[in-house]
Amino acid sequence: MSKLDLQQYSVRTDLALEAKEIAEAGGGKPIPGVQAQTDEEDGIIVTKLQVENEQGARAIGKMIGNYVTIEVPGLRSGDTELQNRVATKVSQEFEAFLERIGVGRTAKILIVGLGNWNVTPDALGPLVVENVMVTRHYFELMPDQVAPGYRSVSAVAPGVMGTTGIESSEIVQGIVERTKPDVVIAIDALASKALERVNTTIQIADTGIHPGSGIGNKRRGLTKEILGIPIIAIGVPTVVYASTIVNNTMEMMQRHIQSHNGDTDKIFGMMNQMEDNERLRFVKEVLAPLGHDLLVTPKEIDQFIEDIANIIASGLNASLHEAIDSNNVAAYTH
Amino acid sequence: MSKLDLQQYSVRTDLALEAKEIAEAGGGKPIPGVQAQTDEEDGIIVTKLQVENEQGARAIGKMIGNYVTIEVPGLRSGDTELQNRVATKVSQEFEAFLERIGVGRTAKILIVGLGNWNVTPDALGPLVVENVMVTRHYFELMPDQVAPGYRSVSAVAPGVMGTTGIESSEIVQGIVERTKPDVVIAIDALASKALERVNTTIQIADTGIHPGSGIGNKRRGLTKEILGIPIIAIGVPTVVYASTIVNNTMEMMQRHIQSHNGDTDKIFGMMNQMEDNERLRFVKEVLAPLGHDLLVTPKEIDQFIEDIANIIASGLNASLHEAIDSNNVAAYTH
Amino acid sequence: MSKLDLQQYSVRTDLALEAKEIAEAGGGKPIPGVQAQTDEEDGIIVTKLQVENEQGARAIGKMIGNYVTIEVPGLRSGDTELQNRVATKVSQEFEAFLERIGVGRTAKILIVGLGNWNVTPDALGPLVVENVMVTRHYFELMPDQVAPGYRSVSAVAPGVMGTTGIESSEIVQGIVERTKPDVVIAIDALASKALERVNTTIQIADTGIHPGSGIGNKRRGLTKEILGIPIIAIGVPTVVYASTIVNNTMEMMQRHIQSHNGDTDKIFGMMNQMEDNERLRFVKEVLAPLGHDLLVTPKEIDQFIEDIANIIASGLNASLHEAIDSNNVAAYTH
Amino acid sequence: MSKLDLQQYSVRTDLALEAKEIAEAGGGKPIPGVQAQTDEEDGIIVTKLQVENEQGARAIGKMIGNYVTIEVPGLRSGDTELQNRVATKVSQEFEAFLERIGVGRTAKILIVGLGNWNVTPDALGPLVVENVMVTRHYFELMPDQVAPGYRSVSAVAPGVMGTTGIESSEIVQGIVERTKPDVVIAIDALASKALERVNTTIQIADTGIHPGSGIGNKRRGLTKEILGIPIIAIGVPTVVYASTIVNNTMEMMQRHIQSHNGDTDKIFGMMNQMEDNERLRFVKEVLAPLGHDLLVTPKEIDQFIEDIANIIASGLNASLHEAIDSNNVAAYTH
Repeated sequence: MSKLDLQQYSVRTDLALEAKEIAEAGGGKPIPGVQAQTDEEDGIIVTKLQVENEQGARAIGKMIGNYVTIEVPGLRSGDTELQNRVATKVSQEFEAFLERIGVGRTAKILIVGLGNWNVTPDALGPLVVENVMVTRHYFELMPDQVAPGYRSVSAVAPGVMGTTGIESSEIVQGIVERTKPDVVIAIDALASKALERVNTTIQIADTGIHPGSGIGNKRRGLTKEILGIPIIAIGVPTVVYASTIVNNTMEMMQRHIQSHNGDTDKIFGMMNQMEDNERLRFVKEVLAPLGHDLLVTPKEIDQFIEDIANIIASGLNASLHEAIDSNNVAAYTH
Repeated sequence: MSKLDLQQYSVRTDLALEAKEIAEAGGGKPIPGVQAQTDEEDGIIVTKLQVENEQGARAIGKMIGNYVTIEVPGLRSGDTELQNRVATKVSQEFEAFLERIGVGRTAKILIVGLGNWNVTPDALGPLVVENVMVTRHYFELMPDQVAPGYRSVSAVAPGVMGTTGIESSEIVQGIVERTKPDVVIAIDALASKALERVNTTIQIADTGIHPGSGIGNKRRGLTKEILGIPIIAIGVPTVVYASTIVNNTMEMMQRHIQSHNGDTDKIFGMMNQMEDNERLRFVKEVLAPLGHDLLVTPKEIDQFIEDIANIIASGLNASLHEAIDSNNVAAYTH
Repeated sequence: MSKLDLQQYSVRTDLALEAKEIAEAGGGKPIPGVQAQTDEEDGIIVTKLQVENEQGARAIGKMIGNYVTIEVPGLRSGDTELQNRVATKVSQEFEAFLERIGVGRTAKILIVGLGNWNVTPDALGPLVVENVMVTRHYFELMPDQVAPGYRSVSAVAPGVMGTTGIESSEIVQGIVERTKPDVVIAIDALASKALERVNTTIQIADTGIHPGSGIGNKRRGLTKEILGIPIIAIGVPTVVYASTIVNNTMEMMQRHIQSHNGDTDKIFGMMNQMEDNERLRFVKEVLAPLGHDLLVTPKEIDQFIEDIANIIASGLNASLHEAIDSNNVAAYTH
Repeated sequence: MSKLDLQQYSVRTDLALEAKEIAEAGGGKPIPGVQAQTDEEDGIIVTKLQVENEQGARAIGKMIGNYVTIEVPGLRSGDTELQNRVATKVSQEFEAFLERIGVGRTAKILIVGLGNWNVTPDALGPLVVENVMVTRHYFELMPDQVAPGYRSVSAVAPGVMGTTGIESSEIVQGIVERTKPDVVIAIDALASKALERVNTTIQIADTGIHPGSGIGNKRRGLTKEILGIPIIAIGVPTVVYASTIVNNTMEMMQRHIQSHNGDTDKIFGMMNQMEDNERLRFVKEVLAPLGHDLLVTPKEIDQFIEDIANIIASGLNASLHEAIDSNNVAAYTH
């Protein structure tokens, strides 16, 4: 399978971190044009990844830009104390991210919650919108009375095309043109390449939202080119294709055998020689005609989505408003 | 109390029918500049009301324009068969209304569901949006394949200012400018002057939505002047002020005594001499300091709202698309 | 109107405090057999009321027993800090109540959430059940491993007769017989005599739940006689009759005029002479044929119910388990 | 791998049909003591399966008894007309099932909706309870006035042990002892061995619900032995283990290669020789330490669950009451 095909397939993940892992798996060495740095602290892994140029972008199939990934493998355990620490970390990383990309402390923000209220794993965006603190109306109606330490924040959930008949990007564009924010922050539920990242990973990126990304079928993106202002995307994988689960697990089986000094060629036959995407194509070929290649989500999705929406809303509240203490961010959210 | 004061107070009702009743009660004879015609059939009362000129508008405190009110006193009984008949009636009246005000069969429609998802009596608009059939995306993406008998319909629920930080009218304006519909249909929950109208009355009007109307605190209207295109408002009273209940009931008590040949002056003392709005002011004066003048809604509001949202969505689907049979409109809604 | 009729009507309120106020209004002096003591602190008013004997019971139309009423007029403002203080107060008062009526620290508790999930103002009980900490299964399955400071608590929401076809008291009786708790705590939404008490008042009583009380139409009670074990009822008024609002307000109007030295006889005519229940009967007579005497609830009921359910669940968690700190009770609830 | 191990593993599926398929795959010929007959009509496949004796029970790891499985591969497409046909089929099959096992037309029924309201894929039982028509209270309170063609039906949703602290079977037992139904019908969400059966298959069985079956962790069963009356279980698979998806797909891949005349030994190596359960154990071994062996459900679960709950409720209403026409069952459900 050629590099080109690989890139074509790589687009399948919305996470830059996964795209990089896939690219590395194909090569096994650092990728020119892609810088990454990982820190771990108390069960929270933060990876800062920069795609610096076209070469890096081509290599991993992701746009030039800044990506921060916060991975918390233990997040699905429902540990309240961990959730609070993650909210604080999201707040700190998001604040640093804003600074790094040059968004000032008084820049006016429009938060956009993409997705569908009525489909639980796609309801992340609307749930965050419901929980963030909005202030724009105070700035508009009584600017003199807004306490220091707050900035203008508004928030909308534009709905999905199947319900509205309008692409969400068009709705956002109309609202941006009328309300003139300086920056858009878009929250979106994503499809992951790995079951273990579902509801445990948060990605922040300044590269916008591109056609076909996220759970819904977006045909138009939500980018700086379209909106005329910077857009920061916060994404959380909440679903995974059945085929992805199969493919990943087969790879894990091979690694497992290798790590036990097994003869993978003997055990796995020609499958062992298949490249990742070749095997994925095979898996899809088998599942597709039977209509089995569903997007699936963990059974406990109702609780997971609510927890992560609270974490993100708390993190945004604390990072957007200096008056909100980032050490105790959860208190400001419902 | 002067006519002017009366008018000032009359604005308190969002229903033209109630405004007219109030004005008549003050005068007792037909109001110049206001035409009204009422028909009843099988428990459904339809009143077509036209405010023809400034004189009529001043007299009842409502804008010049067309108003249709559908009253169904039995609607709160949960009778499925009656609900289906009401949906069919809404469809027929709405279709006739469109024709009367000159909206053509291919005019592109944007349905706007005003109100707040999370406040049950204010959730009418969003619930209708969720249940109407949208088609605009088919017209945009594959216009050749849309079956005859359909027109372009889109639908949005812009949220409320307390959640978004943006006036809903600004959001709608932005979406209208970008998506270019020919007509807006706005659905809104209203406050009634009469407990018996709550969840039993549907008003259709071509006069737009004006500041302060509906349940939420709208500061900007949603009018032809602002949007640049005609706007039809569909409103349902879902709440009533405690003070209104008291005031109305006292008036009913007086009428009750009169109808039994009682001496109302003796029984009601000076209260009997008070004009309606004077008494209302007194009631409010008593309730306000105690924080008692709440907006209230019937206990069964969850079911009522769902039923009426289905009726309106079914009625809209059948009246907007010729391909949908207005004799069996309920089948097309969830 | 005779005293007897008055008592008959007095039963209409589920709150002993209101029953006592009504009885006093009829008499104007302390009621033999009824002791009451009221304390206020920081906007929370606690009244401990004891109906000591048959004479007291007849006078106010309430069973012999202990009643504690916690009134928080500011509770509807949505103030989180006040909510936390109320939860702590509920915990303290409930703990004291248990001690006073002789419920020991290891007595096994069954919490029963009466009411209907799908009718917001009647959903209080089920919502509390969802939020209390249950421990009985740990005691049953691994008694050696339960940490000290906890007792056995279970919780059920039996549903309403319209949904189950079974009286909730029969369901509870069956569960009690099988699971053998020592005490039942039943949570129920009530109808109030006063709009200002809706969602601001919590009553704790050891007299059980009697036929006809609460929002639903209970035909069988939930009493010590039926269950064979003590039952403590926690009730919150969440609805009020339209007729009650009218009647109360008319009384307030009269008092308002008196306090301004007005001549109420002149202003209110014969109405002024009517006794409270006579007037209520008149109001009902007027409203009933029109189907207007609805049970109503404030527009914001969704949020109010959630807030109060959290307060009660937090209060119960802290008072039932010594290991949970009653100074920070809210942390243990969702 | 021995037969015994196989049986041990076979218990993992709640569907008798799947258990039989697994057993056949191990043997390849009819199983003594197990009779099965399959009919298909318009996309609905009905299999009647009888486990006649101990030999059959041991062979497939399922209790002696009657099983009817209704498979509708197209059910996830959201086709309303198909849903109505399935409801009618469920009604017919259920009516025939009742007759076959000797449940008379006036036998009193208690419907039990097992599962958890707040976990969407486990909410099937409570949703069915909410939508079935209950009549027991009419029979209890005014037996003379019940129209002919109805029988006594009650319905409860006992909740799950994590919320109540009580095993659902204990709650049901208490209610059965007190309300004395003749038959229990229990609705439960199941785990499937095959992703394609999730939300497309309905199983009816007269063998009760056994410890460990369904989604929750039941430790006590719900059987005729425990309840003293017959119990019919209606189950729908709504979740599947990630490991099951992987294992099934690998088997499908092998079959796919075989059907294309590929050399599976060459392509799959030793994996090809592994028995189904050996491979599953390997898959689990790889996934488990990483916490990846989640129970997953399709992304669209909210809609699927609602649709199937309506189908089952409609089917039950029509089969339990002669007065309800089984050709138009959907009309009686919400």
